[in-house]
Amino acid sequence: MITSTANQQVKLLVQLNKKRKLRDERGVFLVEGPKMFREAPRERLEKVYFSESFYEKHREALARRIQSEKLDYEILDDHVFKTVSDTQTPQGVLCIVRQQESSLDAFLKAEKPLLLLLENLQDPGNLGTILRTAEGAGVTGVILSKGCVDLYNPKTIRSTMGSVYRVPTLYTEDLCQTVEVLKKHGIRSYAAHLKGANFYDQENYQSGTAFLIGNEGNGLTEELTEKADTLIRIPMEGQLESLNAGVASAILMYEAYRQRR
Amino acid sequence: MITSTANQQVKLLVQLNKKRKLRDERGVFLVEGPKMFREAPRERLEKVYFSESFYEKHREALARRIQSEKLDYEILDDHVFKTVSDTQTPQGVLCIVRQQESSLDAFLKAEKPLLLLLENLQDPGNLGTILRTAEGAGVTGVILSKGCVDLYNPKTIRSTMGSVYRVPTLYTEDLCQTVEVLKKHGIRSYAAHLKGANFYDQENYQSGTAFLIGNEGNGLTEELTEKADTLIRIPMEGQLESLNAGVASAILMYEAYRQRR
Repeated sequence: MITSTANQQVKLLVQLNKKRKLRDERGVFLVEGPKMFREAPRERLEKVYFSESFYEKHREALARRIQSEKLDYEILDDHVFKTVSDTQTPQGVLCIVRQQESSLDAFLKAEKPLLLLLENLQDPGNLGTILRTAEGAGVTGVILSKGCVDLYNPKTIRSTMGSVYRVPTLYTEDLCQTVEVLKKHGIRSYAAHLKGANFYDQENYQSGTAFLIGNEGNGLTEELTEKADTLIRIPMEGQLESLNAGVASAILMYEAYRQRR
Repeated sequence: MITSTANQQVKLLVQLNKKRKLRDERGVFLVEGPKMFREAPRERLEKVYFSESFYEKHREALARRIQSEKLDYEILDDHVFKTVSDTQTPQGVLCIVRQQESSLDAFLKAEKPLLLLLENLQDPGNLGTILRTAEGAGVTGVILSKGCVDLYNPKTIRSTMGSVYRVPTLYTEDLCQTVEVLKKHGIRSYAAHLKGANFYDQENYQSGTAFLIGNEGNGLTEELTEKADTLIRIPMEGQLESLNAGVASAILMYEAYRQRR
């Protein structure tokens, strides 16, 4: 059992929570809580840390899983566990999970792919919620611009409710170029934009479709907007300037899903 | 100019940010930032506080508005302003705004009302986003159970992006009773529920409609679920257990709005 916060593993965990650069160098991220532990794909699960009281409480079930899956694990005393947890009320289990990047090729090979392209999204909670909705709507993959908040930010991970394991994702240097590649492969791109001529529900999303969603405050850049095949508008009553980016994404993804069912 | 954090008004502002009870006793709430100041209805604006540097920067425009609207205001030195702000990077203007409760009668008198009933929602950001989406979808009003997070929580206010001024809201002791009153007035209630027989897009929402949305973790209580006229389901691919409450609300509200356009 690890009883000191000066332990090297403990120090590493604290840094992995804080630093995107370190997460990316090591190609891992942290997840917390029984649900995230339960759903973690075995082949991506590097190591598991339990708080002493969590381990004691679930000793038999944990021992069984540890043995059957040959899990690498450590127990931390509760005080130490608190320092490695990103939450105010730690749930007693934390895992190091390997990152997994999908590829544009994989998305292009899918039948009638439904893609979501995110440009410079800044809110971790928004990004996590979008991934969660994307799984629900059967999205093929999510492509993020380099300027987006880190997918592996602890807040993002929490908001995905496990979808981070299951929705294929990909960071790209240049979203404009991605849109051109999609176009060549017959995938139409639709930019959610206040200047859209048609409402979002007047288009047909039954063949290959990509939705472009912009930054929370500024929307899509002009450059990316120009690359899109079609500008679509989500109508709004009242005096609203825009919808929340997660909400706008959800409305578009679920309209495509509705049409494809 | 107020230069001390021991000033009574400063102390009151700090407490108003923190304490729901005090906000409710005084029937007010706080809003921050130029956008929330600009959009605040004059008749509900009790007092405005500027940071010294914000006031200096916009002196002429502010003086004009202060005079034409006869605004009651104070200037706080920047250090003091920081202590009354709920945000990490204060935007220099904070207002005391009067709360405004709508009434069930007003909702019932509307033509084909579209209502949203929220049961025990706990996340302030979720609630704010829901209000924002509700304005966009032309919702008549939002009814909250007593167990919901405070609408006037600073985080909620921020997430509404001004919709808190414009979407009629109402807290109720007993949502079950509310659903019965709605039924008597010919308003059908639809509970978003995993056991729904029909998908949400197979129902007709063109006459009086109320959507029931439950708590983030536990969904709707059985008691309220039983009161609903119809259980509807939002389909989900993958292994997802549920959608985010704000996303589920958005999908339902925008489907109703789509049908009503």
